[in-house]
Amino acid sequence: MNTYDPAWLPDEAWHALRGRRALVLADGGPIADTLGGELHEGSDPDLVLALRHHADTSDAARAAVRRAPADLGPEGYAVTTHGHTTVVLAESEHGLLYGLFDLLRADPPADGGIRLERPHTALRKLDHWDNLSVHPRMGQVERGYAGGSLFWDDGRARNTPEELRRLHDYGRLLASCGINAITVNNVNVHEDAAHLLTDRLDDVVTIADALRPWGIRVHLSVSYAAPVLLGGLPTADPLAPDVRAWWQRTTEAVYEAIDDFGGYTVKADSEGQPGPHSYGRDHAQGANLLAAALAPHGGVVHWRAFVYDHRQDWRDRSTDRARAAYDEFTPLDEQFDANVILQVKHGPIDFQPREPVSPLLAAMPRTRLAIEVQATQEYTGQQQHVCYLAPMWSEVLGFRPYGEDDARTIADLGASGGFAAVANTGNSPFWCGHPLAQANLYAYGRLAWNPALDPDTVLAEWTHLTHPGAPDLVRTTVRSALEGSWRTYEKYTAPLGVGFMVRPHHHYGPDVDGYEYTPWGTYHHADRDGVGVDRTTVTGTGYSGQYPEPWSDLYDSPGTCPDELLLFFHHVPYTHRLHSGRTVIQHIYDTHAEGCAEAEEARRRWQRIAHLLPGERHRETASRYEEQVRCAREWRDQINAYFHRKSGIPDERGAERRECGT
Amino acid sequence: MNTYDPAWLPDEAWHALRGRRALVLADGGPIADTLGGELHEGSDPDLVLALRHHADTSDAARAAVRRAPADLGPEGYAVTTHGHTTVVLAESEHGLLYGLFDLLRADPPADGGIRLERPHTALRKLDHWDNLSVHPRMGQVERGYAGGSLFWDDGRARNTPEELRRLHDYGRLLASCGINAITVNNVNVHEDAAHLLTDRLDDVVTIADALRPWGIRVHLSVSYAAPVLLGGLPTADPLAPDVRAWWQRTTEAVYEAIDDFGGYTVKADSEGQPGPHSYGRDHAQGANLLAAALAPHGGVVHWRAFVYDHRQDWRDRSTDRARAAYDEFTPLDEQFDANVILQVKHGPIDFQPREPVSPLLAAMPRTRLAIEVQATQEYTGQQQHVCYLAPMWSEVLGFRPYGEDDARTIADLGASGGFAAVANTGNSPFWCGHPLAQANLYAYGRLAWNPALDPDTVLAEWTHLTHPGAPDLVRTTVRSALEGSWRTYEKYTAPLGVGFMVRPHHHYGPDVDGYEYTPWGTYHHADRDGVGVDRTTVTGTGYSGQYPEPWSDLYDSPGTCPDELLLFFHHVPYTHRLHSGRTVIQHIYDTHAEGCAEAEEARRRWQRIAHLLPGERHRETASRYEEQVRCAREWRDQINAYFHRKSGIPDERGAERRECGT
Repeated sequence: MNTYDPAWLPDEAWHALRGRRALVLADGGPIADTLGGELHEGSDPDLVLALRHHADTSDAARAAVRRAPADLGPEGYAVTTHGHTTVVLAESEHGLLYGLFDLLRADPPADGGIRLERPHTALRKLDHWDNLSVHPRMGQVERGYAGGSLFWDDGRARNTPEELRRLHDYGRLLASCGINAITVNNVNVHEDAAHLLTDRLDDVVTIADALRPWGIRVHLSVSYAAPVLLGGLPTADPLAPDVRAWWQRTTEAVYEAIDDFGGYTVKADSEGQPGPHSYGRDHAQGANLLAAALAPHGGVVHWRAFVYDHRQDWRDRSTDRARAAYDEFTPLDEQFDANVILQVKHGPIDFQPREPVSPLLAAMPRTRLAIEVQATQEYTGQQQHVCYLAPMWSEVLGFRPYGEDDARTIADLGASGGFAAVANTGNSPFWCGHPLAQANLYAYGRLAWNPALDPDTVLAEWTHLTHPGAPDLVRTTVRSALEGSWRTYEKYTAPLGVGFMVRPHHHYGPDVDGYEYTPWGTYHHADRDGVGVDRTTVTGTGYSGQYPEPWSDLYDSPGTCPDELLLFFHHVPYTHRLHSGRTVIQHIYDTHAEGCAEAEEARRRWQRIAHLLPGERHRETASRYEEQVRCAREWRDQINAYFHRKSGIPDERGAERRECGT
Repeated sequence: MNTYDPAWLPDEAWHALRGRRALVLADGGPIADTLGGELHEGSDPDLVLALRHHADTSDAARAAVRRAPADLGPEGYAVTTHGHTTVVLAESEHGLLYGLFDLLRADPPADGGIRLERPHTALRKLDHWDNLSVHPRMGQVERGYAGGSLFWDDGRARNTPEELRRLHDYGRLLASCGINAITVNNVNVHEDAAHLLTDRLDDVVTIADALRPWGIRVHLSVSYAAPVLLGGLPTADPLAPDVRAWWQRTTEAVYEAIDDFGGYTVKADSEGQPGPHSYGRDHAQGANLLAAALAPHGGVVHWRAFVYDHRQDWRDRSTDRARAAYDEFTPLDEQFDANVILQVKHGPIDFQPREPVSPLLAAMPRTRLAIEVQATQEYTGQQQHVCYLAPMWSEVLGFRPYGEDDARTIADLGASGGFAAVANTGNSPFWCGHPLAQANLYAYGRLAWNPALDPDTVLAEWTHLTHPGAPDLVRTTVRSALEGSWRTYEKYTAPLGVGFMVRPHHHYGPDVDGYEYTPWGTYHHADRDGVGVDRTTVTGTGYSGQYPEPWSDLYDSPGTCPDELLLFFHHVPYTHRLHSGRTVIQHIYDTHAEGCAEAEEARRRWQRIAHLLPGERHRETASRYEEQVRCAREWRDQINAYFHRKSGIPDERGAERRECGT
């Protein structure tokens, strides 16, 4: 990979900052070196980056200390202005780094002003589902749509000068939006990747060394069966003393090699991965084993809550995958060690374009929780479709599970455990395959830093950074391409929160019944009278009862359930009338026509700026719009034909619309 | 592969023959050597294999000549008995070889008696869809369910002594049932296989040498783009003089290396393969190019008629894949050279468990036709399910396309071009994966030799040969396992001839809508009122008009169309009453319950002979029965739930049946 896009950090974005005379007052070390490398130091500085305990050596920095709070926190910073001098003040190099990127995004405050920033949470992690080699079925990056891995090539860590330079640039991108932790391998840990924990640790060291200058700690996905696979033990039982000793020894060796190692990410007893259940132990016993090994070194376990029966009988309507994580984990609240973080997907199923918030997030008050989102667009167009996910994440993070009278949001519940996102990056020239998908990576970092940010504001930031010198029409077109794109995507895919209807295995494109008669627990239950999954407490699976009031009641009745989640919670007749006034069947016809028309319109607008945004960025996006429109039409026609055939109710507006076939 | 099953030629089957004192009166050469090798020659012979022109040296042979017709044909033979001496008389070594195997199957005639045999057709070919290496998506053998290739290993022809011994044994099996030609590579010719024609010809020589002693000629699948791919020419246009010259030169080189080379098998302008259409030429021009190169050497072109639009718009109900081959090829009748054989699949779609006979077979009176069947069970259970295909093939071969008053059968129409079957063999220990699938290979050879044979008789032959010393209960169980297995399979899969409803790509297991909204042209058009494809002349695609009378009329009306093909030709309401008296919907419910119960019963019966048929043959079959029953239930439940949900009509007998879910 010789050339690649600068994403939201093109040279022009740095221009103003690098034109200044900088002074860095830090302790030294890799991050301080980074700061020095990004700026031009000079005499009579007008840009000072100062640690509090070095502030004495600069008048402006001293002034900043007087103005700032007594403690900015381990990653926080203050930006102040004193005459012509801008100061970034922090307690640590990490804070200085984030302060530097702050200045890329926004002008300094006016003279005498101050801007304070502290991250909402200390753990802002990106999970790479990267395999070390190309997997015969899943490719190199599982659910990856952006080329091969940035880290791995044919079984080994990439380490040519060129590759390390790209890793360096990747670290800059991540740090610039606030990401400070990275899992470097797939949570489905295949044989070769299991060895990273022991005899292949040097590969992890390579990556840790490359990312350390950007304040990014490296985490590792480990196999729960590692003591058997790697240690030659007869068991991986978490209560067996030799298993505990093995993990302790192994973890010590990891920290000897990487002293700021982040910890382990674990998918256990899930979709075929090994776990404590094999030994009659529960998830708390399972996670605490690893936690005990990591605790002396300050590491954490991210234990994924994505546990369900993936061999379900589709005939059995009482089993409900949506219930699974809650049923499995709530009895274990209070039993997890302090350095265990339960990593919970934001919805109860699996990163669908529309799901309710996972009730597990409101049901583990004594457990540290991390909220997991998916930047890679597995179910949201696979980076062939434009789908800006920040509005969805923002809805989730701002959701108040205990009702509007209780201030706690989902983001608050996740503050102690932080955030995790499945990465959407790879070694494609545009990092994310689709140039516009870069916005999702950026927005994830920004929302992890501050979940209260308005997604539109984040989008404006990103657009501005990415297209520094571009004409207004380019920026407004880019913003409008992304702004409503998630709702557009939602419109032309599975209706009203019912989810899936994707092609099995690869999850791209429509196949209404693709998962309907499978063991995966993802059904729509459409018949000739109606559609949707009855998850109510009275006649259904009882899932809605997993929510606190008022949501439990509200979701339990089709009369109060929000339209966009109706079919997630209820099986209703096609003639059921939504709050919108439309029937369910007419809603299906209308939204699919609308969503498709919106995709076509977005393509048209993009074509209009061809002369203003020359080069690959326009061409690549334009060609993906062709695919998006093709696929959106396929969705529209297949969904509408399917429901027309099944319901027998014609589209009221069929005559005015193009023939979709039946 | 060190050990493998003897299939229908175990040592015991040879016992009687090898106990005799044989005399072989032949010209010498590889087949004569084979005969000598299989028998024990001795003085005072009581088994004489004699070419007519050597008959003078044996009294018994002389007597046979007096009794036999003047010409037995190139592969025919007579078996006669003179006192204690059995004579096989033939015009060629090939005839002697087939006569020898005749004596394995049946006792010699009584003293003074004669048994005459001539093959129905001279071309009895087996097509191996073998790739040279493992294909990333298709595996090594495309649509192969019997392990890797017998011919190819990692890009090269197998040629270790062990591998050549197995190839030798394979040749014996093929010759013993009458097969005399083999295509050694996939009709989808990938890059590496294209080179077999030129710089990799030595690999083909290896295989030809191994099979020649069994009277089997080798054919090669070639890429129509070979002149470009291999010859460096700018075009493969069949009318370009340098293209003609290239094929001529190349073909001469092939015959220099393999003087009995059979010819080329070609899939052109089909499913993405290159062909004459790219140059604005038709299939006759395309095929005649190769024919001209082969003619001087006595070779033939097998040109596949499997041509259709595989990028069809599913919304467009006027396009009909079933029509495609007829529409494409009938205008070209009379235009093909004498050594072109149009190879036509027996049904108009693609080897479904039930299709009408291809109307193309009755519409090319001036073209040599080969009838292609599929021994590999792509759509008939992939050698996990027992499915004896001979009854289906027999129905096809005995079909009288011009009506019962016209004696010509499909087998007759194919006599000049012969038969082709897609092989079901590989390097699995049982050759065919499933031990019982060996019966399909055997039956194909036997029916290609004599299409009038009763499939039950062939089955009895095969059962007897395969289990020479077994108790009666074993033989009756084996026969009953196979006998009705095709109809059982038909019952629990797609109903009433509508076809498909299989999982996309791999074609195993049910997915009712799997191909419904795809470009592949394989639809069922089920809606809430009815199901089936209207292929009538009045309101449908007109396909039924491609048949001669009386079939055209008969298929055109649901009142006269045979039940088993009803949904192939008609879209009817679920309440349509069949000739059987049942409604379509009740037929679906009933047959799926029945088919599944039959599979369960077959499994039970098989279990009962465990003590009588020890070893792998029983175990392997038993374990495949587990999978068959599991899969049959999946079919039953999914199909029945699908149609219940869609039609809203309950199963009249639902109460007495186990719950299938809805």
